[in-house]
Amino acid sequence: MLVCVGSIAFDTVETPDRRAEEVLGGSATYFGFAASLFGPVGLVGVVGEDFPQEHLDAFERRGMDTAGVQRLPGRTFRWAGRYLDDMNVRQTTNLELNVFGEFDPVLSDAYRSGGYCFLANGSPAIQHRVLDQLRQPKLVLADTMNHWITDTRDEVLSMLRRVDGVIINDEEAMMLAGRSNLVGAARAVARLGPRIVVVKKGAHGSLLVADGNVFPLPAFPLEEVKDPTGAGDCFAGAFMGCLARGGDHSVAALRRAVFYGTLVASFNCEAFSVERLRTLTLDEVEQRGKLFADMLRL
Amino acid sequence: MLVCVGSIAFDTVETPDRRAEEVLGGSATYFGFAASLFGPVGLVGVVGEDFPQEHLDAFERRGMDTAGVQRLPGRTFRWAGRYLDDMNVRQTTNLELNVFGEFDPVLSDAYRSGGYCFLANGSPAIQHRVLDQLRQPKLVLADTMNHWITDTRDEVLSMLRRVDGVIINDEEAMMLAGRSNLVGAARAVARLGPRIVVVKKGAHGSLLVADGNVFPLPAFPLEEVKDPTGAGDCFAGAFMGCLARGGDHSVAALRRAVFYGTLVASFNCEAFSVERLRTLTLDEVEQRGKLFADMLRL
Repeated sequence: MLVCVGSIAFDTVETPDRRAEEVLGGSATYFGFAASLFGPVGLVGVVGEDFPQEHLDAFERRGMDTAGVQRLPGRTFRWAGRYLDDMNVRQTTNLELNVFGEFDPVLSDAYRSGGYCFLANGSPAIQHRVLDQLRQPKLVLADTMNHWITDTRDEVLSMLRRVDGVIINDEEAMMLAGRSNLVGAARAVARLGPRIVVVKKGAHGSLLVADGNVFPLPAFPLEEVKDPTGAGDCFAGAFMGCLARGGDHSVAALRRAVFYGTLVASFNCEAFSVERLRTLTLDEVEQRGKLFADMLRL
Repeated sequence: MLVCVGSIAFDTVETPDRRAEEVLGGSATYFGFAASLFGPVGLVGVVGEDFPQEHLDAFERRGMDTAGVQRLPGRTFRWAGRYLDDMNVRQTTNLELNVFGEFDPVLSDAYRSGGYCFLANGSPAIQHRVLDQLRQPKLVLADTMNHWITDTRDEVLSMLRRVDGVIINDEEAMMLAGRSNLVGAARAVARLGPRIVVVKKGAHGSLLVADGNVFPLPAFPLEEVKDPTGAGDCFAGAFMGCLARGGDHSVAALRRAVFYGTLVASFNCEAFSVERLRTLTLDEVEQRGKLFADMLRL
């Protein structure tokens, strides 16, 4: 079982074209929709009293187990952001932690021994608490974010020594490594502990560093990006879903997983919230995969 | 014969690590060093009285014909720029056109019928004057720059209708198309006339649009970038050198040419000025090509 510990949220997203108010979002949400294309996923998160049952039903319908989603008194986590004309640049305009501020993930026995775990962006303290609960995991990956690196650098560094890999964005990699060259930064992050470093570059694709090897991959070229929110978590979800399904963590398998992460993330950008993911099938992913592989053939 | 019409300059380059004063530069220079790996190149440019014969000798030694390089009374074109910590961002700190301000390219008969011509960045008026001289060219590509697009948009647009392709950077593509989505911008530029649109994204690689097909390619991952000056012109030089050598302009050949452009540009970034290119061999390029192809294999 692939377990994801992260946020479930209401997002308010503004792009040059449209504004979507309080739509389903959160790292665990996006991760779950993407990963469930490849196999079962267990979500560990927290929602407030205002979170509608229909969203939980939608998770379940897509093969996500929501037994680990706690419901606490109060309001669900809310995030609001705005994309500038260049959809690669985002401003957070509002953040209400609400019940996510009291998030204390407790994993069931089945989840503890699930083998595969993704620690979505969250405080390193919470990430450590989850790591403490895992029993002989096969593969644990984590995300982190600029303010954790700045404010709680030591805890982030000790977290990095406990995981197999990280999936972070370019700015975070450069911040962690203190280097502006991205290849050098990714390699430096690997030297901090994780065997696998995936650096996400938005519309510019990604960079995988694994066992000292570097693999660049462009993004799937989209002529229109409606809403890139959650693309990084979709990438992580498809990446880990792909690895959990195959059980192979070789460099070749990681490379393949980056390819699937890229594909699923591209679908996510075609609509607001999880709208495109709700109906996305693995067949559609495979079809785009053939197209993408043809584009990349030399 | 592949002919390049462009600048020959003295560059003063400042990076976070080093400052290089009045080193050999210019678009035709970089283009020529890269293209001459693949076959003969004729340079059309202008230098001042201060330009040393040893540089012209160095061009000739690498297989460049300098018969089209005029020497005019006055000083050679000078450019100075500074790279910020992120080597993808550059500021021009000084620009002295000098004799380049009087540049009026006149092509010899052999050059006019050479078949392959690259119009490096320069005023569209000069580019048109070169186009007027070409006789039944097989392939003509052009570069342009933000201030030409802003100040002389109509002349740039009429130039685009006369060439087979453009090799421009991402900002220029977005400016020409009035679109911030790069894939959309590249397709829009193709609708302005050229069959081939290559968009260079610096460390993020490139995007080729040809006959309506889109091909993304990442940059070769470099752990250290010493000086990216001229990388775009090296890309163009290797791209056109590769096409002129093969004589095949199919989409597959263009794809292959982008691959070689990427490789040669990466070598150029490893040293200041043309230092790395002076000794670069096609064997070294092929070796890196194997490595790169392995990185890209899915």
